[in-house]
Amino acid sequence: MHSELSEFELIQRFFKTGSEAMLASNNPSIPLGIGDDCALLALNPEEVLAITSDMLVEDRHFFANANPEWLGHKALAVNLSDLAAMGAKPLGFTLAIALPQTDLVWLEAFSKGLFTLAQGYSCPLIGGDTTAGPLNICITAFGSIPQGKAIKRSGALPGNDVWVSGTVGDARLVLAALRHELRLLPKDLQAIGARMHQPTPRIQLGMELRDIATSAIDISDGLLGDLKHILLQSKVDAEIFLESLPKSVTLQDQTEVIQHQFAACGGDDYEICFTALPDQRGMIGDISKKLNLPITQIGSIKTMQSFEPKIELLDRHGKTLSESKVALLSKSFDHFA
Amino acid sequence: MHSELSEFELIQRFFKTGSEAMLASNNPSIPLGIGDDCALLALNPEEVLAITSDMLVEDRHFFANANPEWLGHKALAVNLSDLAAMGAKPLGFTLAIALPQTDLVWLEAFSKGLFTLAQGYSCPLIGGDTTAGPLNICITAFGSIPQGKAIKRSGALPGNDVWVSGTVGDARLVLAALRHELRLLPKDLQAIGARMHQPTPRIQLGMELRDIATSAIDISDGLLGDLKHILLQSKVDAEIFLESLPKSVTLQDQTEVIQHQFAACGGDDYEICFTALPDQRGMIGDISKKLNLPITQIGSIKTMQSFEPKIELLDRHGKTLSESKVALLSKSFDHFA
Repeated sequence: MHSELSEFELIQRFFKTGSEAMLASNNPSIPLGIGDDCALLALNPEEVLAITSDMLVEDRHFFANANPEWLGHKALAVNLSDLAAMGAKPLGFTLAIALPQTDLVWLEAFSKGLFTLAQGYSCPLIGGDTTAGPLNICITAFGSIPQGKAIKRSGALPGNDVWVSGTVGDARLVLAALRHELRLLPKDLQAIGARMHQPTPRIQLGMELRDIATSAIDISDGLLGDLKHILLQSKVDAEIFLESLPKSVTLQDQTEVIQHQFAACGGDDYEICFTALPDQRGMIGDISKKLNLPITQIGSIKTMQSFEPKIELLDRHGKTLSESKVALLSKSFDHFA
Repeated sequence: MHSELSEFELIQRFFKTGSEAMLASNNPSIPLGIGDDCALLALNPEEVLAITSDMLVEDRHFFANANPEWLGHKALAVNLSDLAAMGAKPLGFTLAIALPQTDLVWLEAFSKGLFTLAQGYSCPLIGGDTTAGPLNICITAFGSIPQGKAIKRSGALPGNDVWVSGTVGDARLVLAALRHELRLLPKDLQAIGARMHQPTPRIQLGMELRDIATSAIDISDGLLGDLKHILLQSKVDAEIFLESLPKSVTLQDQTEVIQHQFAACGGDDYEICFTALPDQRGMIGDISKKLNLPITQIGSIKTMQSFEPKIELLDRHGKTLSESKVALLSKSFDHFA
């Protein structure tokens, strides 16, 4: 279904209205939204701005016939997840999108998914770009953090606990079913489908962790691969109890190999992996209760033993897993692999 | 030429080094650059942040075999031009890029073009994303403006002069030659080639205009089409003297029809069109001398006569051009046309 909408009309129809509804309350953070050469954003003097950008490409990050409403949700969710991992409060986002054609039904559904999530976090669209081209969705999201409170990847210290929110591996399990690598019962697919298609950014958790976490990262490429980024930047090693990784009941129905592989290395979970001092365990338990979100201790940070940071995986008996077993697990997702 | 670089190595090699060189001077505006979940940006309390995003797609915004060094320049230049049109001082930018393959020669040249321009404006790369996919370059640029000093599209008032910087129509002339719509001598193509391939963002001019211009826009889609955006948002009409449009000597060698069409409606010039009170003429002349940049008065703003803003084009005798002649001129560039 094609139409003769101009770029200008397209923005007006699908993107400006949804945005204005959110800006109508005279948001002092956004003196100027869509429709000028730039958007304007104002910060409180005691805050810094967190900025993150993610580009989603067909066949790489989503299937060619992906549900556009889910896609609108996910394109924003992956960016909000990056804000969450820094402890930022969402302020707004820009959307640059290349569209192969002006498909009104697709645009309607996409913008519905996008703005429903945006409204949930009071995070308006403030600008962007639309063009013709192979489908490509690039969102840049903005959040505010009190000065000095950003949770960086570089702050993990030996002796810190390693934690992860929610459960991990479900998005990978859904992907496996869609790729016919394994079969899931319809009820199971329904139970965890949203974990891949409509992930929940852990914004509240990130904000609660500002004074608690020493480092944090969101899990987009797989728990072990993403934890490795913390280790690299903090110059530390880690010890992880493979059996401790929190898994959904659906994932627990799978073979042990799949459970471990998907939980340890499956991507697209958008949970938060973070480190904290052991004396914060009580506080973290309180946050978990308050947010009604499991937060699980999965290991601890160690002093770096060589030039490269290393993750030591322990089995249920506390025994180190063999190198070959680890190699099998840790083939992490890489966009250029 | 393919390689086995991972996304991480690719960022390290081509994008992180160029960025760190610029951040090494302990830039207080950027507490955290590339390499975490988000970049962090700090503002002075009396400033607001200007944000703009442009997406460049192969075959739409550049030819498939475009010189990658020029492309790196242009991808950033079009964003800096948007900052210029608001009166913003560049602070930094994010780059999200989809690459069909990891071509080291291409990446080397692209990043050279990108960082050479970035360094010229002390505007470091602070974050972004890389992925495999059809070539797509999405830059989001950030600039600072003292509170209340942003030059919006909505401030033009009846009686204001309309001005344009530099010359217009050259980028369209180069495009016409590349498309074989007309022939240019090699020396002429060389003289104006950069106007299309390596446009100069008018950052200094934008900053000088903060207290002078009542409205401004950068010319990406064609002078008349872009001026129309000012008229729409300011709810005014304009009267433009077609003969006054500033043209390069190369464009002046073309037929009169081409001169008018390209100057009035050619895109990709990235000059600034702005409005100002007549008593600012002396100041604008001083700025022109200071920046060694022609700034030409091309018409004036009028009270809106109907529901739609209108541009009245006048010939050399001050006579209104016929509707049909205007229609021929004003077929402005639209990304979805």
